[in-house]
Order: sequence, then C-alpha cells, then structure tokens
Amino acid sequence: MGIKRGILIGRMQPPHNGHLEIIKQSFEDIDELIIGIGSSQMSHSQSNPFTAGERVLMLKKALSEQKIPGDSYYLIPIPDIMKNSVWVSHVENLCPKFNVVYSGNPLIQRLFKEKNYNVEIPPLIDRKNLSGRDIRFKMLNNENWEEFVPKSVLKTINKIDGVNRLKEISSKEINEI
Amino acid sequence: MGIKRGILIGRMQPPHNGHLEIIKQSFEDIDELIIGIGSSQMSHSQSNPFTAGERVLMLKKALSEQKIPGDSYYLIPIPDIMKNSVWVSHVENLCPKFNVVYSGNPLIQRLFKEKNYNVEIPPLIDRKNLSGRDIRFKMLNNENWEEFVPKSVLKTINKIDGVNRLKEISSKEINEI
Amino acid sequence: MGIKRGILIGRMQPPHNGHLEIIKQSFEDIDELIIGIGSSQMSHSQSNPFTAGERVLMLKKALSEQKIPGDSYYLIPIPDIMKNSVWVSHVENLCPKFNVVYSGNPLIQRLFKEKNYNVEIPPLIDRKNLSGRDIRFKMLNNENWEEFVPKSVLKTINKIDGVNRLKEISSKEINEI
Amino acid sequence: MGIKRGILIGRMQPPHNGHLEIIKQSFEDIDELIIGIGSSQMSHSQSNPFTAGERVLMLKKALSEQKIPGDSYYLIPIPDIMKNSVWVSHVENLCPKFNVVYSGNPLIQRLFKEKNYNVEIPPLIDRKNLSGRDIRFKMLNNENWEEFVPKSVLKTINKIDGVNRLKEISSKEINEI
Amino acid sequence: MGIKRGILIGRMQPPHNGHLEIIKQSFEDIDELIIGIGSSQMSHSQSNPFTAGERVLMLKKALSEQKIPGDSYYLIPIPDIMKNSVWVSHVENLCPKFNVVYSGNPLIQRLFKEKNYNVEIPPLIDRKNLSGRDIRFKMLNNENWEEFVPKSVLKTINKIDGVNRLKEISSKEINEI
Amino acid sequence: MGIKRGILIGRMQPPHNGHLEIIKQSFEDIDELIIGIGSSQMSHSQSNPFTAGERVLMLKKALSEQKIPGDSYYLIPIPDIMKNSVWVSHVENLCPKFNVVYSGNPLIQRLFKEKNYNVEIPPLIDRKNLSGRDIRFKMLNNENWEEFVPKSVLKTINKIDGVNRLKEISSKEINEI
Repeated sequence: MGIKRGILIGRMQPPHNGHLEIIKQSFEDIDELIIGIGSSQMSHSQSNPFTAGERVLMLKKALSEQKIPGDSYYLIPIPDIMKNSVWVSHVENLCPKFNVVYSGNPLIQRLFKEKNYNVEIPPLIDRKNLSGRDIRFKMLNNENWEEFVPKSVLKTINKIDGVNRLKEISSKEINEI
Repeated sequence: MGIKRGILIGRMQPPHNGHLEIIKQSFEDIDELIIGIGSSQMSHSQSNPFTAGERVLMLKKALSEQKIPGDSYYLIPIPDIMKNSVWVSHVENLCPKFNVVYSGNPLIQRLFKEKNYNVEIPPLIDRKNLSGRDIRFKMLNNENWEEFVPKSVLKTINKIDGVNRLKEISSKEINEI
Repeated sequence: MGIKRGILIGRMQPPHNGHLEIIKQSFEDIDELIIGIGSSQMSHSQSNPFTAGERVLMLKKALSEQKIPGDSYYLIPIPDIMKNSVWVSHVENLCPKFNVVYSGNPLIQRLFKEKNYNVEIPPLIDRKNLSGRDIRFKMLNNENWEEFVPKSVLKTINKIDGVNRLKEISSKEINEI
Repeated sequence: MGIKRGILIGRMQPPHNGHLEIIKQSFEDIDELIIGIGSSQMSHSQSNPFTAGERVLMLKKALSEQKIPGDSYYLIPIPDIMKNSVWVSHVENLCPKFNVVYSGNPLIQRLFKEKNYNVEIPPLIDRKNLSGRDIRFKMLNNENWEEFVPKSVLKTINKIDGVNRLKEISSKEINEI
Repeated sequence: MGIKRGILIGRMQPPHNGHLEIIKQSFEDIDELIIGIGSSQMSHSQSNPFTAGERVLMLKKALSEQKIPGDSYYLIPIPDIMKNSVWVSHVENLCPKFNVVYSGNPLIQRLFKEKNYNVEIPPLIDRKNLSGRDIRFKMLNNENWEEFVPKSVLKTINKIDGVNRLKEISSKEINEI
Repeated sequence: MGIKRGILIGRMQPPHNGHLEIIKQSFEDIDELIIGIGSSQMSHSQSNPFTAGERVLMLKKALSEQKIPGDSYYLIPIPDIMKNSVWVSHVENLCPKFNVVYSGNPLIQRLFKEKNYNVEIPPLIDRKNLSGRDIRFKMLNNENWEEFVPKSVLKTINKIDGVNRLKEISSKEINEI
C-alpha cells in the first residue's frame, strides 16, 4: 500500500469536538482516514439515540465545516456482530485496507493487536466534557451541551428533534403492559 | 380503510386484568383490535416465563370468557428485532393495517409517532397490582396473585405448572460450571 | 388436554378455496384449529407476494364469511428458522399445544413424525387449480384466478393492488446496476 | 429538507462506466447523492466477488478521477436483510434522509413506491456491455473487460488479484468432500 | 506451535471411505487433525439429510474402527456463517490453532490462502463412487451404497432409518398448501 | 440405545479441576460423555475470555493427562441460540443421542426436564475455589489461580497470554469515543 490509511471506530452518539480533534490530528500521520460508525444498527435508545444515517450526516457536515477534503476520508457504518473473534474480519470486509488503528477502547485495541495491527491510543481531549455519555447526560438534564459539538451536529440534532427523542425514550414506562 | 382498527402491544407475562380492561375499553373507539404479543421468542426466563403459544392460549380463553367476539380481534406473536429503526415496519409486516396505537411504553410511542401514527396512552388501572412484574414477583414469593388475572389465565398457568417453572428458573445456580 | 386441537401450516400465498375446504373438514375431527402462516417474514417476491399481515387479514375475513366461529381457531404467523432440526420446537413455542398435524408437505410430515406427532395428510381438492403456485401464475398471465379464492381474499388483493405488485416484482430488471 | 438528495443502490460488482455515467447525470437534478453498496456482506462468490471495502475503495477513487467533489456524495455499504417489508426502513436507518430514488430494479422500485418515495428509472447506457454480470463473464473468459470500468477500478482489481479470485472461486470442486 | 496440526472441513453427508482414506493419509504428515463438520446447522434436506450430531457419531465410530487414537483428532461442528469474508475467523474461533488446511473445495482453498494458510489438495480417491452426492443418489434409487461407507456409518444410518428419511424429504409435495 | 451416554454442558471459562472431577465421576455411571462447551461464539469478554477452540484444546489435553480414553467422550462447541424454547432441540442437533443430563444450572435442568430428560445434579466440589468466576477474579487480581486448573489448562493459558488478555479487556475505556 503506497498511501498510509488509518481507521477510527466509535459509536459517535453524537459526534463531538473530541472526535473532530482526533480526526484532524490523525491527518498529520496518515493520508486517508476511515471513520467507522460503530453499533450502526442501534438507534432510539438511551446510549444510542441517533440512527447511523443521522450520524453519517452529522459527521459529513462537521468535516466539511473543518475544510477536511471529502476525498480524504471514508464514513462507514459498522453493525455489531456479537462475536468478538470475527469482529476484525467483519471490519476488514466493510473497509478499504488500513495500516493503523486509533482507539481508546481496550477491547478494540486487543482485538486488532491479536491480528497484528499497529494500534495507537489517541490523546485524551478535555475528558471531562468530551464524551458521548456526558453529552447525552447534559441533553437529558437541560444542561449546556451545545458548545461541545460542532455546529453542524447541533443543527442536525435540532432538526430531527433529537433532544426530545432522547428524553422521551429515557422516560419511565407508565406501566408494564 | 372503512373500519377503525387499533393495535395494543405488550409482552403479556402473563396477561392480567389490566390488559383485559384496556382491551374492553378500546372497543368503544374501534371496530377491531390487534393484540401483539411482544418478545414472542422469549420464554423460561424471570421476565418472560411463558412461551408465545401459552400467552396466545391464555388471551384467547380470557377474551372468550369476556364474551369478546373472536372475529373482532387478532392475536399476533411479535418477535423482537433488535433494531429500533425497523421495528415499526416489522410490526406492519405481521399485522393487518391499523390506524391507532395503544401503548404506555415511551419507546413504542416514540417509534410509532415518528412514522406518523396516532398514538393513545391507555388509562392506568390499579397500577399497584396490575403489572406483569408485580404478578411475577407475587408468584415467586407465594403471595396472592390469582385474583389479578382472568380465570382462564390462572387455569392455564396451573396446568403448565407455571409457578414452579418461574421459581426454578429464578433460583441461583449451585455453581458456575 | 381435554379438547382436540389440530394444526395446519401453509404459506397461504394467497389463501384459496382448497385451504378453506381443508379447514372446514378438519372441524369434523377436532375442536380447535391452529392455522400457521409459514414463511411469515417473506413478502414482495414471486413465490411470496403478500405480507403475513395481509395473509392474516385474508384468512380472518374468509373464515368469517364461512361462519367459522372466531373462538375456534388461531391464526399464527410462523417465520422460517432455517434449521430443520429445531423447527418443530419453534412451532411449539409459537402455538398452543396441539395433538394432530395436517400437512401435505413431506418435510413437515417427517419433522413432526420424528417428534412423535400424529400426522394426517389432507385430501387433495381440485389439485389442478387449487394451489398457490397456479393462482399466482394465473395472476401473472391475466388468466381467471378470481374464482379459486374466497371473496374476501379477492377483495383484499384488489385493495392492496396485489396483482400489480406481483407483476412488477416479477418483471425483469432493466439492467444489473 | 432544503437540499435535494438522491439515492442510488446497486451491488457494484464491480463499479463500471455505466454507474459512473448515471452518477454524473444525477447531479444535474440533485445536490447530494447517496451511493448504497448493496449485499455488502457478500464477497468471494461468482455473483459477488469483491468485498464491500474493495467496492468502496473502487468507487471513491473513480469518483475522484471524475472530479466529483467528495463532499457531495455518501458511500454506504448496505447489508441484505432478507425481509422485503422492512428493507426500506433498513436503508433509511443507514442513510441521511433522501427525496429521490434511482433504480432500474423492479423490486427496489416497488418497495420504495409503497413507502411513497419518488422513484426514477435511470437511462440504459450501453446495456450490452455495461452490466456487472457481463463484466464478470468477460473476466472469467479472458475477454476484454478493462475498457468498461474506470481506470481506478481496473487498478484496484489488479492489485487484489481480483480476476484470479473470481476464476478460482468459480472453478468446479474436485470432489464433494 | 511444537506439534503439526491440520484441518479437514467437509459436510460429511454422510462420511464415506474417501474421507477415511484422506484422514488416514493426513497422519503421515501431521500430529493432530481437526475434522470440521461443515453446514452443521443443516439436516433433513436432500443435500444435508443428517444432523451434526449424527455425523459426529458416525465419524467417531468409524475412526475408532480404524484404530485412529481418540486423542489425535478433534471433531468440530461448524455452522455456516453466510459471509465469506469472516468465515476463516469463524473457523479459527471454533478450532485449536492449525498450520495446514486440506480441502478440495476451491472457495475454501481461496479463503484460507488469502489469510496466508498453507493449503493442500487431498488426492482424489475413486472419484466416481466416493462422493456424498453419489452416495445419496444411490440411497434414493435403491442402488448399492453400503460398500462405500465405513461399517459404523452404515450401522448408524440404519439405526436412525436414514434412507427412509432421505426418501421422504425428497418426495414431491402433494400440493402447495 | 445399547450404551449409556451422558451430557455435561458448561461454558468452561476456563476448564478447572471441578469440571475434571465431575467428568471422572460421571464415567462410573455412563459409557460415553458428551462435553458441551456453551456460549461457544463468545470470547474476549470478562465472563468469556477464551475462544471455543482454546477451550476445546484445554479440555482435550486435560482429559488426556487424566488418561480418559479419547474414544469415550465428545467435545462439542454449542453456540447460544437466544430462544430458550428451542434450546434443547438445538443441543440435540449438535450431539449424538444421550440419556442423562448433568447440570448444576437451574434453567438447563428445567429445559431438559420439560422435554422428559433424566437430569442429575453433579456434587459440589470445593465450591469456594472451583468456579470459573472465582478463577477469572483471581487472574485479574494476581492471586493464585494456577492450582485450581489442570496443568494443560495452565500451559495453554500461558501460551496464549490469557491473563493479559483478560486484564486488558477488563480495563476501563479511557474515553467513550
């Protein structure tokens, strides 16, 4: 492979400024980046409120805002496969060949290392605020979350009524019918 | 659609007097009712002790006891599909067309509303006693649960040795072999 | 089991007069009948044009036309499971207990017999015309198919534009894009 | 939706000049295009020799060659779901919202039309040569196929030894072990 | 890996003298052999009449007859995974590590070679008679098949009434109910 | 069935001295034993660190150490099927026929009893130390676990760097990317 291609996999629920920062930094080392959108079959749950298509759209527009050229990255939805031993092959099937893996997730790190991939741990960026869990928590509690995501992500979440969706599906069932 | 047809979806573990009351009330507004038996693939677990077939039988006999005409409703087992975004289509595939949805479950409400369905929240009926979870809890603890379910449900549970089934599968494993 | 309950499983694409005749005859031997709608996950294909919900509706209305009491039968969609050795258990999970199986399909006969069920082969009724395949063929070729199905089945197929659906999905792709 | 977004779905085994022509023409009507790569789970078979990742790579490079801006399209692998009635929802989950569908496949046309989508049939372009099936046939028979695909597709197929892969998996088994 | 371990994968419907011969010869090159029983989820069909458990039993007894020590081989049922690109990982998950692959199947050869395995093609042994397809054909047509399988295989097929099972499931449906 | 065959099902994460003891004792009652390796699709998780193939290897070598003849037992990986009502049929498909079930798991006991199997509860052996959960806990906490597993299990875990695998996949994610 003449060019150097990396992969970053995350659930991106939602994409936030931390993701964008890691993506920008990665281009100092690589020519092309695959952005794998994990658990792509999930949506409408507390941990996974947004569909894969909504996450694809948010990322595309955020990367465009950042002037990252559309020819330099791949946005690939990756469904869960519930069988860790074949997960790396599953990712390889969906993506162009890559030679470096960026992940802060210990399981993903281990699985790629067992298949002899070069794994790099991205730096922590404002860990206190820049995590999907924190942002969803703030959405649910009417705290300020808007500043931690790119403008285009904010715009899409508003357009799809995303905060209300999250609140509704997180509310208690009135009865167990 | 000339006639008005509603749908009520629940796991019915087991069907209880609250379900029957909601079903009876629904016929004041609609001509036909689809009763979707959720998580139909599940059985023999603490939250889902009864098979779909057992739940179908309990409901059929309970509705017959209540003199609800067999031509006015549909009993449809609905397996989980683990992908919220296609769940409404999955239900539509299994059921005749319907124009009103009854559900106390916020996720179900949201999913149908996003597909432009008319969703109604059924009234709470003796919430303290009439929930599947409470009834299963009472079964496990030898409390009086029998009065909260229709006679035919009681009869079927006795016939299939249902309380012992629930107790056995809820007991601790003697060892993790 | 005090009562005698039978099961008839077929894809019912669409339900036709032969099905209705077998159903009516079965009630001479049994008290209740389970009608299993096979391959319920399939629709919009040449062999399986109609959804499970459409087939449920067609059957319900046809049985009502025939004055078969709604309390005496169960209409159960049965998805394929692609593993013959567990198929009988899969059917048992979805249906109330039964003690006689009606089927003209040699595989279904064999699978139930290996689990010690009493299997009966229904009589052939106008084999030349009364088969789903023949009726779909006639639909595709603008031949008279209407007389071989119950009135309510005809009505539903017309309402959902069923013949055009079948023709469209059976047409050749203009190109392999 | 302010912008006009279309979707084109195909198996792209491999992408060829016909695909590229349809894609270029579509931009006369729309602002953005989703290119859905169908049967993405398939590879290493006679009808589906290439992995989703290989097809993604071929298309990205071919679109880049054609100077189609990377910000104007989405390349989305779409796995089969084997249940026609939920297939449109499955596509909707994976893709940003779209308002026009391009397809020459009658089943895809029908499924989208039943969900009230605007469906357009792309023009036939050199039907005799520009189909995936023909190109694979030519590969197998050492005929000239190279002129019918973009240069970057040719380059990728050569790099992955694609023609030999197709020939090997299409050869007869020496014995049925 | 100190020891040399091979793998042979086949559907073994049923195991025959050709399989046994290949297995015996393989021990001239290797210390241990994994025998993968392919399509293990299949049974009761014309191409796959026997369950995985029946095939395990037939092979165990046949290997015992041949005095092949039970400590030197592994009998592993391998279900299909319908995704060629992850199939090798799927096999690796189910089996102890191996360093040589025996297969006459071009697809299996290709998939393992792409993962850098050493693949060997076993010699053809009486190709005319020693194939599963031929043996099943002879069973169906009351020809002599018994001499082409090990005694213990014959014994098990007789015990489970295997020939009648094959004949019944291969007979024509009397009608398409 | 002339011979008496039993089945023992466990996840064996990892196999330990308790398993070996139960296996040895079982041969006082039976001629052959099927050892079903449960949740065979799982690996690389805290509760299921080892692949099915690794567990097969550990057991084979441990049984060999114990001089248990290789012809007297079957090692069968059993994937989960997530549908309790068909689970017994699923096991029956994968295994030779058996007439006694050994299990300390109340759900497994119940499922087999409902299908009229003879179920026996194996004796508890040093319950405090001999459970998979305890052994994994000790691995994580650098306590002495080595004495509770057979030598060959220890050897395999060391060879595959098993303790580090368990520690890595159990560590906290540095961020929720």
